[in-house]
Amino acid sequence: MTVRIGIIGPGGMGRAHVDRIVNELAGGEVVAVFDVDAANAARVAEPLGATVYGTSAELIASADVDAVMITSGGPFHEADLLKAIAAGKPVFCEKPLTPTADAAVRVMAAEQEAGRKLVTVGFMRRFDRSYNEMKEILDGRELGEAILVHNRHRNPTVPESYTADMAINDTAIHEIDTMRWLLGEEITRVRVDKPKKTKNRFPHLQDPLVLVMQSDSGVLIDDEVFVNIAYAYDIQCELVLETGTVSLADQNAITRRDSTGARNRMTMNHNDRFHLAFNAELQQWINAVAKGEHAGSSSWDGYAAAVVCDAGVQALESDESVWVDVQLMPRPALYA
Amino acid sequence: MTVRIGIIGPGGMGRAHVDRIVNELAGGEVVAVFDVDAANAARVAEPLGATVYGTSAELIASADVDAVMITSGGPFHEADLLKAIAAGKPVFCEKPLTPTADAAVRVMAAEQEAGRKLVTVGFMRRFDRSYNEMKEILDGRELGEAILVHNRHRNPTVPESYTADMAINDTAIHEIDTMRWLLGEEITRVRVDKPKKTKNRFPHLQDPLVLVMQSDSGVLIDDEVFVNIAYAYDIQCELVLETGTVSLADQNAITRRDSTGARNRMTMNHNDRFHLAFNAELQQWINAVAKGEHAGSSSWDGYAAAVVCDAGVQALESDESVWVDVQLMPRPALYA
Amino acid sequence: MTVRIGIIGPGGMGRAHVDRIVNELAGGEVVAVFDVDAANAARVAEPLGATVYGTSAELIASADVDAVMITSGGPFHEADLLKAIAAGKPVFCEKPLTPTADAAVRVMAAEQEAGRKLVTVGFMRRFDRSYNEMKEILDGRELGEAILVHNRHRNPTVPESYTADMAINDTAIHEIDTMRWLLGEEITRVRVDKPKKTKNRFPHLQDPLVLVMQSDSGVLIDDEVFVNIAYAYDIQCELVLETGTVSLADQNAITRRDSTGARNRMTMNHNDRFHLAFNAELQQWINAVAKGEHAGSSSWDGYAAAVVCDAGVQALESDESVWVDVQLMPRPALYA
Amino acid sequence: MTVRIGIIGPGGMGRAHVDRIVNELAGGEVVAVFDVDAANAARVAEPLGATVYGTSAELIASADVDAVMITSGGPFHEADLLKAIAAGKPVFCEKPLTPTADAAVRVMAAEQEAGRKLVTVGFMRRFDRSYNEMKEILDGRELGEAILVHNRHRNPTVPESYTADMAINDTAIHEIDTMRWLLGEEITRVRVDKPKKTKNRFPHLQDPLVLVMQSDSGVLIDDEVFVNIAYAYDIQCELVLETGTVSLADQNAITRRDSTGARNRMTMNHNDRFHLAFNAELQQWINAVAKGEHAGSSSWDGYAAAVVCDAGVQALESDESVWVDVQLMPRPALYA
Repeated sequence: MTVRIGIIGPGGMGRAHVDRIVNELAGGEVVAVFDVDAANAARVAEPLGATVYGTSAELIASADVDAVMITSGGPFHEADLLKAIAAGKPVFCEKPLTPTADAAVRVMAAEQEAGRKLVTVGFMRRFDRSYNEMKEILDGRELGEAILVHNRHRNPTVPESYTADMAINDTAIHEIDTMRWLLGEEITRVRVDKPKKTKNRFPHLQDPLVLVMQSDSGVLIDDEVFVNIAYAYDIQCELVLETGTVSLADQNAITRRDSTGARNRMTMNHNDRFHLAFNAELQQWINAVAKGEHAGSSSWDGYAAAVVCDAGVQALESDESVWVDVQLMPRPALYA
Repeated sequence: MTVRIGIIGPGGMGRAHVDRIVNELAGGEVVAVFDVDAANAARVAEPLGATVYGTSAELIASADVDAVMITSGGPFHEADLLKAIAAGKPVFCEKPLTPTADAAVRVMAAEQEAGRKLVTVGFMRRFDRSYNEMKEILDGRELGEAILVHNRHRNPTVPESYTADMAINDTAIHEIDTMRWLLGEEITRVRVDKPKKTKNRFPHLQDPLVLVMQSDSGVLIDDEVFVNIAYAYDIQCELVLETGTVSLADQNAITRRDSTGARNRMTMNHNDRFHLAFNAELQQWINAVAKGEHAGSSSWDGYAAAVVCDAGVQALESDESVWVDVQLMPRPALYA
Repeated sequence: MTVRIGIIGPGGMGRAHVDRIVNELAGGEVVAVFDVDAANAARVAEPLGATVYGTSAELIASADVDAVMITSGGPFHEADLLKAIAAGKPVFCEKPLTPTADAAVRVMAAEQEAGRKLVTVGFMRRFDRSYNEMKEILDGRELGEAILVHNRHRNPTVPESYTADMAINDTAIHEIDTMRWLLGEEITRVRVDKPKKTKNRFPHLQDPLVLVMQSDSGVLIDDEVFVNIAYAYDIQCELVLETGTVSLADQNAITRRDSTGARNRMTMNHNDRFHLAFNAELQQWINAVAKGEHAGSSSWDGYAAAVVCDAGVQALESDESVWVDVQLMPRPALYA
Repeated sequence: MTVRIGIIGPGGMGRAHVDRIVNELAGGEVVAVFDVDAANAARVAEPLGATVYGTSAELIASADVDAVMITSGGPFHEADLLKAIAAGKPVFCEKPLTPTADAAVRVMAAEQEAGRKLVTVGFMRRFDRSYNEMKEILDGRELGEAILVHNRHRNPTVPESYTADMAINDTAIHEIDTMRWLLGEEITRVRVDKPKKTKNRFPHLQDPLVLVMQSDSGVLIDDEVFVNIAYAYDIQCELVLETGTVSLADQNAITRRDSTGARNRMTMNHNDRFHLAFNAELQQWINAVAKGEHAGSSSWDGYAAAVVCDAGVQALESDESVWVDVQLMPRPALYA
């Protein structure tokens, strides 16, 4: 069975997902497109022979659509998620699930009413080969328990419109989800440290900042977020266990020895670094949909990330680097 | 358009290709199966809902089959290749194209009569990310011209039935094709050096051996073939240019620091190391078939590899490590 | 001129220094020994043909002694430092200079009265090749200014008598000095974070802990101190600049590929890791003494480290991870 | 006891050795200098307060000289070696021991008559940390027996006066000695392969060339000698054993991540790469002289290297890459 997918809001990420489905992944087909920008919808639909819908509601309701992919802006997610859930259709939603924790609670309520998990949130790092090998060693208890995790999230540059809260809501959110998944624990408190600012870019921006988190069992997690570091898109993670450590490697294809030294290429953006993780994530979703199963991050994961982000922003806005507690609602049985 | 594929001789490699097409690749479908072992054919066909054919000829002739995949034993390739070419159907043939250069010449003759390239040979290393980054640097002339290439082809172990000529025909054949493709040159002469034998395995086997080759322009290529080295499936290649070098990296996902030191995992077999290259190779073939184009290694590549292997075996069987010339027929225009 | 050295308190470190002077370094000679344990003094002196003195005062006063090396316990340092300064003799003192900041102030007062720097403190990391290459890149402003520094100080194990304040006073003191030297800035505030404790060793010990510091210009420095991590003596440092980073490498001699993977040896103790730095430190001191010059860390460096340690211990003992300010006296002109 | 050293022919290497003895090594003193260029002798002697001698014979005969260091041109070695042996004085002689095997035989005859080994040849790689860790693993039989060794000897550049035979006599001689020492076996035959020449430098020079050697037990050794490769002084060695491999690592001090990638510095000349090996070599010699012992490479090692070089040059000058046998005299008991 080929899964017939309708996409809502195909911007850069959405179009990249369409390309994957068409050219690299098995079992899916993009048959329906909606975009508030009708011209964009037409451009995406035309080469696919897909149908352009006038509203997202019509797309979701269409009998030709088996599953929905939401890649529109965050504020538009909730309404379409609720419609898809009401229609009983599986939906893949790019992160963030919703911009607020409250909206995420409503999405979970709808799923609980529907009695099944229908929403998969696009946290693609869970599909990266490096993080998975790290998790295997942790889960196999080969080197004891997790004690600390050191993360680095570095971007070459961001536009002037980027603000410090985006460093948490849009950037560190990846580590927030990945740490929850890696450790199998919730984050309980959050703090933000503010190092010297780079003079390299915008005076208005606290860049870098360091998000410090602690988990249920006391694992201390730091995350250096440095979004104008110029040299690369450099995602690092070192898991410190009781009798050893595991770090992400650069997955280098070649080593070059030339007049600059012995060197390896670095990645310059998220698609360069996580292309295969995106593929694996969507392939898993398509395969699960075809079997009537749920796979990947759930609405609970989207909700928990939102609550941690809120605490992070609150910490960021405090004068001193104080701990802010993370207050999660009890975990509904559906997401146990 | 979904490409409907018929597979002939689905052994271990063939079944792995079927899995790829079903679970990981876009645009293909396995609809037909033939195997001399009818029970195996049925086992492969059943979960796919594919049709089992009583002869390879019937499978090739079927109107339901757009393209043919041959993964049977080498001696069976020629007959089915000729039938597929006669039927005008694209065919993906696992290496070796044919066990002898003469048979390869006949395949090329058939293609020339058909007036188009229909055969793609399964030299998957051309699709490996590492070799491709290496080739980009060479082709971009960033570090001058190629001068030497040092290869290592190491397997953890082989069965007792493995003989020294297989070290060339089945093992080094990968480097033979890859070097031709990487350099864009033909191999002109071949020599085999015989180091001390490992006492670790079979007394009858000259293991390791070193295949030395020279290309048109004089590039010296060595290839250490060591098939019982125990520790890993370790494929290495260092391209030495005029002002720098490029080496395959291990593509590590993680680095682990524990009581054995700082270490990276190594691959233990060809699928572990080249899984993504196999995927890219077949995806390219499926996409090309869908567009009515040819892609990947041609029959000429299969022929040239066979001739170099023949010279290598002749060198292996000589008492001393003398150069044996490689005598290629003129390259037909179809393969220019 | 050969520098005639008298050593006070030759324990493990002191005897290692004697061995260096005799077997590996140019220009020095150990001619005098004092130890509260007279038998130990005799054991050290005998193979050297050195004189054993009955008190440290006699050793310092002796006309046969050009320079003094103090490797006794910290509480004994002050008295001998003051005597050496009064005698106008250069003195190499192992860290800590003194156990309290007050004592260090008295040592500086004596030097100022003497009108010259006579004391060199044994902070050997300033002589490590890796830290020096890092500092060169920082000082050359090749990658902009320092923004963050991430340190790891990991020991395989410590004895049960080790207490959490020693993690700061004896262990992190190395990073405290190295960061001051590397950045050319003072530390202004300190905080201690407490991750989950390893169950691998002693219930009484907060191990690991994370010391967080901030410098004059705002550079944020973290130092994970984990002294029972079992796998190695692993000293790491990543300097994050505005447009790149520099990290200590493992200075590996070989790479081994075997059944555990591709791996490098790690060091298991400080002498294994810093042997050459110790040599360079003492050689520089001997050469400076021969020329009547001062070299290496001064009493100010010993004092500043002590003050930062005091603040660190205060932070450690606080309930929450709050910032404790570092209050340095104004820097005397002698140490400008 | 301080060893009083007289140096003969202090060119670049000799002056570097003098600097070591004065500034970095224990137990030696340069008290005497002879050079055919009297002005150079005076320049070297003056800052040391050393005596300049009018002939090497007078220097060797002087009662003030305990040991002799010969760093003059190769053709001058034999005469001074014989005089030092006759005088019963230990002598450190830079490689080559003598330019011809015949001369080396005469040196060995003199030593045998003297009844003891007095000559140490300057093969410094035996003191390199990386080669020593490699040898430990081989000697400990941790990974089985040696089967192959792959060497690379790359220089950034050489002057136009450099000829292909120097690639063997001056350059590959280091690998020739190191392989004999590493394996504990003699070389039995030699061959030279000639790859495409780099167009980067001199048309007259066969650069690179590959020296292939085989040892007593059949270990196959290759040595790529590429002396105009521009990018670095890059010495590599991979020892292939029965169940694993060991390679020289780059001994990196730091890793840098910047806009060119993740990179490590490379060394640009032999002193940069082997500074510590030179130090260890001379320190061992000084310590041995002080104790009346012999240490390091003997005249037999100098002789054997010369014979292998002769065979290599003969192979280089042959039209085809044929094996040339190495004919060593029986090993005298003194060098057993």
